[in-house]
Amino acid sequence: MPELRKDPIVNRWVIISTERGKRPHDFPSPQKRVNSQSCPFCTGNEGLTPPEIQSVRRDSSSPDTPGWSVRVVPNKYPALLNSDDAVTRSGAGDGLFDSMTGFGTHEVIIESPEHDKEFEFLPNPHVADCLQVFQERFLELKKDDRFKYILIFKNHGESAGASIEHSHCQLIGLPIVPELVNEELAGSLRHYEKNERCIYCDLIKLELSDGRRIVTQNEEFVALCPYASAFPFEMWILPVNHNARFENTDEDEFPHLASLFKETILRMKTALGTPPYNFYLHTSPIHGNHNDHYHWHIEIMPKLTKVAGFEQGTGFFINPTLPEEAAEILRNTKI
Amino acid sequence: MPELRKDPIVNRWVIISTERGKRPHDFPSPQKRVNSQSCPFCTGNEGLTPPEIQSVRRDSSSPDTPGWSVRVVPNKYPALLNSDDAVTRSGAGDGLFDSMTGFGTHEVIIESPEHDKEFEFLPNPHVADCLQVFQERFLELKKDDRFKYILIFKNHGESAGASIEHSHCQLIGLPIVPELVNEELAGSLRHYEKNERCIYCDLIKLELSDGRRIVTQNEEFVALCPYASAFPFEMWILPVNHNARFENTDEDEFPHLASLFKETILRMKTALGTPPYNFYLHTSPIHGNHNDHYHWHIEIMPKLTKVAGFEQGTGFFINPTLPEEAAEILRNTKI
Repeated sequence: MPELRKDPIVNRWVIISTERGKRPHDFPSPQKRVNSQSCPFCTGNEGLTPPEIQSVRRDSSSPDTPGWSVRVVPNKYPALLNSDDAVTRSGAGDGLFDSMTGFGTHEVIIESPEHDKEFEFLPNPHVADCLQVFQERFLELKKDDRFKYILIFKNHGESAGASIEHSHCQLIGLPIVPELVNEELAGSLRHYEKNERCIYCDLIKLELSDGRRIVTQNEEFVALCPYASAFPFEMWILPVNHNARFENTDEDEFPHLASLFKETILRMKTALGTPPYNFYLHTSPIHGNHNDHYHWHIEIMPKLTKVAGFEQGTGFFINPTLPEEAAEILRNTKI
Repeated sequence: MPELRKDPIVNRWVIISTERGKRPHDFPSPQKRVNSQSCPFCTGNEGLTPPEIQSVRRDSSSPDTPGWSVRVVPNKYPALLNSDDAVTRSGAGDGLFDSMTGFGTHEVIIESPEHDKEFEFLPNPHVADCLQVFQERFLELKKDDRFKYILIFKNHGESAGASIEHSHCQLIGLPIVPELVNEELAGSLRHYEKNERCIYCDLIKLELSDGRRIVTQNEEFVALCPYASAFPFEMWILPVNHNARFENTDEDEFPHLASLFKETILRMKTALGTPPYNFYLHTSPIHGNHNDHYHWHIEIMPKLTKVAGFEQGTGFFINPTLPEEAAEILRNTKI
């Protein structure tokens, strides 16, 4: 069973994933180039993954057979384990040390049955299906009280941490709320208590009227380069109207999100020459009422620079590109 | 002038280093392989760096000529600028946004005049000289009230962010105390207020009596794999006796630190096959009294895994190697 350990000095948990149990010769583990014959995420190879959790099938095909367009499977090498009898707290810590059973879930959302189809080239309704699958996983996992937070994220490209090239996202369900989300909740609550307004709503209004950091927008969503971008060409996608919880998104909104999300990734790839990148979705924790002050969003980070000793030692980042210039370049990129 | 910007939601500053002004085609900037003829850090090439700030010269050679064993020069591409007339606060922010002049200093400490000499292969007194130069830089920069924090760090190897292979450290003087240091100060203060003891001292006592996470030790210093290591084979070096400030280290202690530091790096390189790595030194901020509760230390991170979407989205890390196993491997490595 993996173990969660808390640093005795700072308020930081780590997952010690002993299932992976890596010894010196196991590093590094480079991305394996596979073709569609041996790729576990390709249609026809359903038997190479653990049994599917969920799928989108327009025909009446059976689980774990071809016929799907989006497919959710357990991660074969999970960072956390979903065991029925796992309690999340192991009880008392040991002196200065505090630990927790590594309970959680780790799923893979395969976006397309085709090996070489990046999601920005899928038809809009297909991407909207992917987004709706995200939503359905949230609604399903929320039924288990032991989950406190669900993170959906993508690693694309080897140096962004992808180990399989076939386009996919990952979902990790956690027994604690991540520190970075807690910081956003605390910051947005401070603003709400002072102004009785959502800070993200204020920010969107300001950015739309200023315009310099906007990448693209439609009636429901906006993509922008944040004022204090930690990384060059960092982008956020936000719903224009207030909504704290991704899973409360209206079905009608997914096609708008699909179209803007695809456009944003395409602009980034075209402007920057298909860099490796990560994105993740920040939304309200499962428990607690953050409905008035928080605002869900997606953060996208092309991997153009290296996180080095300065960033690791301070937690603050050196960004060599002005966000206003990044937005202008992305906005003016012909796609 | 670079600019410091604060995220409007969370308490995070970033350096927007417009001096570097990177546009899409400027990424990535791979490490250039140079030989000792064209390396700006090699002896004989002193003219390729800005004029030196300080050096160790046993002969009576002049600045910016050969004859040095350790040499400190300004970084040619500084993240922050040390300008005499820079005020650190630009005054009022703009609505939700807060910024600051990118005042600071960015120096390079060249550890040896020889191109291929890694610091773990330098004689002990030479490494002790390097450490003493660190101390002298601290004492010198502390005279300027605008500095709030000084970070010394190393990037070794291209994927750890090094752009020049000749062995060197960097020093960045900052107009604010980094968030990660503030978190350590807050955590250690909490422990002090409750127990009237330094948490690092308590931790060292516990670890030395337990032994499972110890890598090596001598009478003055200890190297260990921390209980909640965020990275596989992460190590910390701490002075055994309480000391909040690196710059208060006694001259007699540097040879002990030099010897243990070299041994720790050598164990890591031997066990892991000379991986890229980073280290940084955490010490008290320049201002404020943290003498009783804080304890300076060095954190060393071999770069064996990739920081990906999950880590970026949560701030919490998946470590595939149990710290107790890492310490055992490092301890038993023949060097």
